[in-house]
This record gives sequence, structure tokens and C-alpha cells, in this order.
Amino acid sequence: MIRLKILWPGKTSHPELRSLQDYYLKKINMRAKCELVEVKEARGISEKYSDRILEREASNLEKHIKDDFIVCLTDTGKELKSNEFARFLDRTSAGTGKIITIVIGSFLGLGNRILSRADYLLSLSKMTYSHELCRIMLLEQLYRALSILQRSQYAK
Amino acid sequence: MIRLKILWPGKTSHPELRSLQDYYLKKINMRAKCELVEVKEARGISEKYSDRILEREASNLEKHIKDDFIVCLTDTGKELKSNEFARFLDRTSAGTGKIITIVIGSFLGLGNRILSRADYLLSLSKMTYSHELCRIMLLEQLYRALSILQRSQYAK
Repeated sequence: MIRLKILWPGKTSHPELRSLQDYYLKKINMRAKCELVEVKEARGISEKYSDRILEREASNLEKHIKDDFIVCLTDTGKELKSNEFARFLDRTSAGTGKIITIVIGSFLGLGNRILSRADYLLSLSKMTYSHELCRIMLLEQLYRALSILQRSQYAK
Repeated sequence: MIRLKILWPGKTSHPELRSLQDYYLKKINMRAKCELVEVKEARGISEKYSDRILEREASNLEKHIKDDFIVCLTDTGKELKSNEFARFLDRTSAGTGKIITIVIGSFLGLGNRILSRADYLLSLSKMTYSHELCRIMLLEQLYRALSILQRSQYAK
């Protein structure tokens, strides 16, 4: 069985996106074990000091990164089709026996300290989406991937 | 000023996505003229007859396609970065003086009859997303593109 962990800084604030997040998480957990950890975000630092924000968030994320297979979402990552993503999750889980931990950054992205620990860099699209919408896109793809692997009908 | 029209078959049924749709449409209309037409969807046809569904939807979409610059969303389309998409909208609008009509299909995609009328084929991602989530992704990108063109701060 595929075991997933998702890490991102801060709670999803947009109420509709938060509701969609819960909706997809529930669906994912009917098909796999998936834990979401919304780690502490860097608060009270001016956006001028983006390095400091990234550094603080990297520290908070690192506390939850164990000896897992680490996938980081970044715009320089590799783009996969949905069925390639499904096969990637399946092969990685079976091949390593590890939990697959997927890390998404805040509006600034992820610090180099986190990116350098990644076993795989993934991109959801060439386009830049708001980081909260990216969370929903990731969850939808995870649900879709699990549905593809279980060959069940994906709810349209 | 950029004039946009968006066409898709059927109303967005998921309440959270519907609410996000209204949210982004309002934001877009503060920066450009954008009309959304949710055309009649093909009802009462079994999914086995997907050609017939696509044909019916193509007829309904065609009624709203005038002498506009037509952009169709399809997985074989070209992927653009967000700032490339912004420049594309700007150049197309200025160069043709036309309304840019963007067409998204239903869960089956778009029929060939519509695709063959396109002036530009666009893809939002290599991954396949639910057609209702794609609507939100498109609207978010339109809002982002207009914000890029107006060099204003994009709300995170």
C-alpha cells in the first residue's frame, strides 16, 4: 500500500480551497494512507527578507522530514503526465518501501536547503499558480493517480 | 483593453469550485472585460456514445463562436509560462483587435469540429485535471496574466 505524507507551511486560508483540500484528502485516504502536516509558517518577517522567510520555513519543514522518499514541488522540476505520475508513485513505493513525502512551499517556493534534500523534483505545470491552488492541484493528482492504479472509475 | 470571452459546456456543479469561479471572474473583470458563457451541455446521452456527446456540445459551443480569436484548451496544446501567457494575450489582443474567446471542453474534452476552428491550442499542464478544476486554473491564470500586464501586486 502506498504511504504518503504531504508537508507545506501554514494552513490553507481560502475557505473554498480549504474545503476542497478536505474533500480530496478524504478521497485519497480511502485508497492509501496519506497524512497532511501543515507546518508552522514564518510569520512577522517582512517580505523584503525573503531569504529569512525561506530559511525559517525550511527549518520547520525539516523537522518533519524523516528517512522518507522526498518529492519537492518546484518550477524547475520534471513535468509528468497523470498516468506517468501514477506509475512513479507505484514504482517508488514498491522499490524503496518508504513513505513518499511531498513538500510544497509557500508563496516564495522552497528554500535550497529543502530542495537539496529531494530525491525527486516535480513540477505540476509550466504556469505559476497561487500556492494554495497548487495544493488542490496536487491533491487532485494524487487522487487521480491512486484511481488510475486501482483502475477504478475516476469521479468526473 | 483586453476583451475576453470564455465558453464551456454546462454549469460548474461543485459548490466550492463554483464559488472560486465567481471570485476569480470578479477579479478579472476589474482589469478587463470578460464574459463567461456556460453553454448547454449534452444531457441524456450515455457515455458510451462519446462522439455523439462531443458533437452535440460542439454545436452548442459553435453558436457562441463569432469572428473572435479562438483559443482552445487541449492536452496537445502548447504549454506557456504565466508571463508568456500574459504577453500572448496582450499581443493577440493588440494585433488582431478581436475578442479572445477561450473554449474549454467537458470531461470528454473538445470535439474536432471545435479544435479545427482554433487559432491557438493551449495546454495548462501535462497532467490531466478534472474539467471543473481546469476552469479555476484557467481563471486564475487569466487574473495572473492581467496582473502581470498591469504590473500590479498579485494577491497571494
